[in-house]
Amino acid sequence: MARMNRQVLLASRPRGWVVEDNFRIVETPLPAPSPGEVLVKNEWLSLDPYMRGRMNDAKSYVPPVQIGEVMVGQTVGEVLESQDPAFKPGDKVLSPLGWQLYGSAKAKLLRKIDIARAPATYYLGVLGMPGMTAWFGLSEIGKPKAGETLVVSAASGAVGSVVGQLAKIVGCRAVGIAGGKAKCDYVAGELGFDACIDYKAGDVAERLREACPNGVDVHFENVGGALLDTMLTVMNRFSRIVICGFVAEYNATEPYGYKRLRSILVNRIRMQGMLVFDWEERYGEAIEALAKHLAAGKLKYRESIVEGLDNAPKGLIGLLKGENFGKQLVKLA
Amino acid sequence: MARMNRQVLLASRPRGWVVEDNFRIVETPLPAPSPGEVLVKNEWLSLDPYMRGRMNDAKSYVPPVQIGEVMVGQTVGEVLESQDPAFKPGDKVLSPLGWQLYGSAKAKLLRKIDIARAPATYYLGVLGMPGMTAWFGLSEIGKPKAGETLVVSAASGAVGSVVGQLAKIVGCRAVGIAGGKAKCDYVAGELGFDACIDYKAGDVAERLREACPNGVDVHFENVGGALLDTMLTVMNRFSRIVICGFVAEYNATEPYGYKRLRSILVNRIRMQGMLVFDWEERYGEAIEALAKHLAAGKLKYRESIVEGLDNAPKGLIGLLKGENFGKQLVKLA
Repeated sequence: MARMNRQVLLASRPRGWVVEDNFRIVETPLPAPSPGEVLVKNEWLSLDPYMRGRMNDAKSYVPPVQIGEVMVGQTVGEVLESQDPAFKPGDKVLSPLGWQLYGSAKAKLLRKIDIARAPATYYLGVLGMPGMTAWFGLSEIGKPKAGETLVVSAASGAVGSVVGQLAKIVGCRAVGIAGGKAKCDYVAGELGFDACIDYKAGDVAERLREACPNGVDVHFENVGGALLDTMLTVMNRFSRIVICGFVAEYNATEPYGYKRLRSILVNRIRMQGMLVFDWEERYGEAIEALAKHLAAGKLKYRESIVEGLDNAPKGLIGLLKGENFGKQLVKLA
Repeated sequence: MARMNRQVLLASRPRGWVVEDNFRIVETPLPAPSPGEVLVKNEWLSLDPYMRGRMNDAKSYVPPVQIGEVMVGQTVGEVLESQDPAFKPGDKVLSPLGWQLYGSAKAKLLRKIDIARAPATYYLGVLGMPGMTAWFGLSEIGKPKAGETLVVSAASGAVGSVVGQLAKIVGCRAVGIAGGKAKCDYVAGELGFDACIDYKAGDVAERLREACPNGVDVHFENVGGALLDTMLTVMNRFSRIVICGFVAEYNATEPYGYKRLRSILVNRIRMQGMLVFDWEERYGEAIEALAKHLAAGKLKYRESIVEGLDNAPKGLIGLLKGENFGKQLVKLA
């Protein structure tokens, strides 16, 4: 009997928060690879905040997922069958195959990963898009210098945790912002940040001033909304703001109205948006650097795992509500 | 009989728009220069939008003017008496002496100007802070390239008019935004911009899309508020926004709530605040370049003149309401 594929499709567009009804699970025949294609069995699916944006029917850096299409996402998996000389069965690969158990992709969309260097899942996290996002965001935009103060929001997440640790490596004071005591304890304790502010515990502006007595030189923004407005009140002259994510806005039905932009003028702040894909040609450079810090024990890393494709929607909803702890993955096999 | 000085003091802080009652005019004895000081007879006073910010009791890049103090401002004038070897009577100088007919200043705060190269007033405009603001804002932040589209707000003003003409010199499509048909005719006609949008004539977003068929690569913002929000909807990927002034906010009692910041992320926009003082050591470089373009007839320039110190408050109020046409000056002598 033929093996079947299982896929999670976008069933409807969310209004505000994502709900499980926005997805539909289907079974389909296993796709046969055409010439130049490779059939992959997905083993791990990465869940990332950007997915929320792709569920909207709005202009963004890439087209939205269409209703009835497989949800987008990166996976790591194993090659089952190859119609391209660059891959052979058994190869472990990073793929853009999305929320499904199997998929055929053009060979040029796949990248072999070295599981002798790091576990396969790391290529979806600290050595993958999140880690590289932290790396390029800091090295190309934030440019933290020894003695400066860096703040990162969503500090316990896949990107934020790497941002703060990279800042510590260059000699910065690193201050995280996260939701809840458990996350803050992890960030300031296990990850070695100098401080972590629990945004759920009240007056963030006052706590920021306490945690950053010399002001803030680099802010790495993963959240946006009121938090970014507050950050604008504590930024130093000639400081830099890396705009990496606006999770707070993805789920809002009305965009937030930012009231502190005058600080950009008064303090000559540079605020710049980023998308890791823009440095695709230089991924190798980032992976080398991150792998070196990882091997030296300077990058601690935690994963949060949801079991089974059918639970991926729950996993994404939890991620968007900040329920995850470190890199959010779905175990598919 | 002793000659008397005449000064315009800040009498009260404006709430919203500036009114004449915010100023008080007084007569005082002529100040005698101490050793190291120079007595200057002011001939021209520059009026600039930043003055509105200095009237507020708010943290900014410099302390506010205090109640009872002489209003700040640059002047050009003539040295009457010098207690410093660097200056002699008859020298023409640029000074920070503010809204008064005479003043004594430390010699290091004065700069000699060459009136053989350009009229004295030009050192308050196209060869002064406004011209240099345009120069550094473009060369250091906006970085316009041939074939790109640049938009500048307050396009008929002292800064905006230079911004657009410099953009034309490097081969950009230059589009201005100004208030009223007369200003727009001046910008698109006399100054040679490719187009000018009258923001008072309605749907600015639609007109921007018409005037910028390839989107906008560089926006030079002198105004802020709703206009900046609209600009965020037409900015291209990897575009740059120079934040030079927020005149719209200076007079507002409530800060504007910007709703389009997500465009910074989606389009990887770089938005950066600027203040010309930050390049003080490089003023000579800017003046050289601007004087060269001026001599070559590539920088057209217009002045708007108010007669007499007592009319300076009216002049500033008019400037803040956009009633001026080109560089706003007060003729003092």
